[in-house]
Amino acid sequence: MPTRPPVHRTIEAMQAEADAARAAGRRLVLVPTMGALHDGHLALVREARQRAGGDGHVTVSVFVNPTQFGPGEDFEAYPRTLDADLDALAEAGGVDAVFAPSAGVMYPFGLPPWVTVSVRDLDRHLCGATRPGHFEGVTTVVTKLFLACRPHLAVFGQKDAQQLAILRRMTAELGFGVELVGHPIVREPDGLALSSRNRYLSDEERAQAVVLSQALRAAEAAVELGERDAAAIRGTMEAQVAAAPLARLQYAEVVDADALQPVDTLSPERPSGGRYLAALAVYFGDTRLIDNTTLMVRDAG
Amino acid sequence: MPTRPPVHRTIEAMQAEADAARAAGRRLVLVPTMGALHDGHLALVREARQRAGGDGHVTVSVFVNPTQFGPGEDFEAYPRTLDADLDALAEAGGVDAVFAPSAGVMYPFGLPPWVTVSVRDLDRHLCGATRPGHFEGVTTVVTKLFLACRPHLAVFGQKDAQQLAILRRMTAELGFGVELVGHPIVREPDGLALSSRNRYLSDEERAQAVVLSQALRAAEAAVELGERDAAAIRGTMEAQVAAAPLARLQYAEVVDADALQPVDTLSPERPSGGRYLAALAVYFGDTRLIDNTTLMVRDAG
Repeated sequence: MPTRPPVHRTIEAMQAEADAARAAGRRLVLVPTMGALHDGHLALVREARQRAGGDGHVTVSVFVNPTQFGPGEDFEAYPRTLDADLDALAEAGGVDAVFAPSAGVMYPFGLPPWVTVSVRDLDRHLCGATRPGHFEGVTTVVTKLFLACRPHLAVFGQKDAQQLAILRRMTAELGFGVELVGHPIVREPDGLALSSRNRYLSDEERAQAVVLSQALRAAEAAVELGERDAAAIRGTMEAQVAAAPLARLQYAEVVDADALQPVDTLSPERPSGGRYLAALAVYFGDTRLIDNTTLMVRDAG
Repeated sequence: MPTRPPVHRTIEAMQAEADAARAAGRRLVLVPTMGALHDGHLALVREARQRAGGDGHVTVSVFVNPTQFGPGEDFEAYPRTLDADLDALAEAGGVDAVFAPSAGVMYPFGLPPWVTVSVRDLDRHLCGATRPGHFEGVTTVVTKLFLACRPHLAVFGQKDAQQLAILRRMTAELGFGVELVGHPIVREPDGLALSSRNRYLSDEERAQAVVLSQALRAAEAAVELGERDAAAIRGTMEAQVAAAPLARLQYAEVVDADALQPVDTLSPERPSGGRYLAALAVYFGDTRLIDNTTLMVRDAG
């Protein structure tokens, strides 16, 4: 049985380990997670290990952050599987520490938090439009995680593309001195993006959940064929999702990849040099799944 | 001529010096200032030097933070005297580095900032009530200063008592791992608290500005004599200020020292174990001066 990494439950203990690693000249890399680890997370850990280098230091944080769940969302139901997570990390290897604080450690003055970190405008569309307060919860908790774990670099999954864009802006604007790396989405053989929430799906829902990635492939194909009208690309995605009887579309959007604002026409120039994000959120029953892809436009179509 | 401390203009340069000092096991102490240094600031520097220890590292930051000034306040007029400040620090000795970033370095995405750090409720009274947005500017910039300078400890003047209370809460709640120390108010022989804004005063205003500290001494004396009614204590302060013809009172308040909420009656028990803050803000012409004192109540009066 491989050895589990040491688990820190307090900010002080985590900071002490981080400070010692920094003082020893090691490169610190953080993988923030909410636990319920799957192969997508383990891909982030491998990337973290590689980025840290042989004598670097990799921390995985495991914290189901209450402030990024809205009323009626699945905070209570969200899977908490720390034992299995530690076994998976032991098996995978290459993890130096796990930071697994309680809510009381992370929010010592109770909830809602008195201190919050906000990012203007970048949360107006996509998930931000349908999950009010979500990204303020994310920026606040990641600030705390960065302060506790003191990484040089942190690895996030590209599946939460809006989260990554917002965290990039936050990290740059506050001057954290932390480099952010987005890891490509890890998918099942049929294309479904790995997610801790996939375990909520019935067999029938699971089979139909392939429509998210199919919709994104259809959007890419349309752009490849010269489509530059955002409404038409959204329509393509919507038609794909509508083909699954159990699917209920929450949003299918095309935004520029930097400011995350909706566009009418995709162009190789402004606003973001031809980089766009196609993203969608789809419910199967109570289970909400998201997926996205980058659309690159090099000519006017 | 004593040697001036080295000046860092970028976050990266400051972080590199802080990281090297941390890696060498030195204790880092920060004194955040807006420059225009006076003897009160130099007292903070001496306290910082003492707290850092012989082989510690003291940084003084000098930044006139635009986001903590409101419309119509004195951001443009605020004295900027970096050359004189560096000479004063060289003369005082004991400073290892000065962090003097431009607004462009501190707010690389322009103003207003996209990312802000907010503290709930603690800014509802005192200066927070009359300077909307001020403390959000303070918490945001001090977050940036802490991230750039990476101190173990920071020294603030007790003159900005509400600022210190808010920063204590912010530092604790975000888990910065930074210890905050409040240095007692430094005063002129006649009692006027030292402030960079005192230089705005005419001779006549300067002479009358003594009423701020006189009002606080009168509040202390009233409590000493058994007064426990907050309105009566406020009335005592107001009467003192009214005796100065050039003075225009903005507020005179009595709040509990932790939550900074107004109280009706001072009590040795709740809400804050008998610790209260008497604070006032007074205009002389366009010049706004503040001062405060802690009122300790050990019996019901």
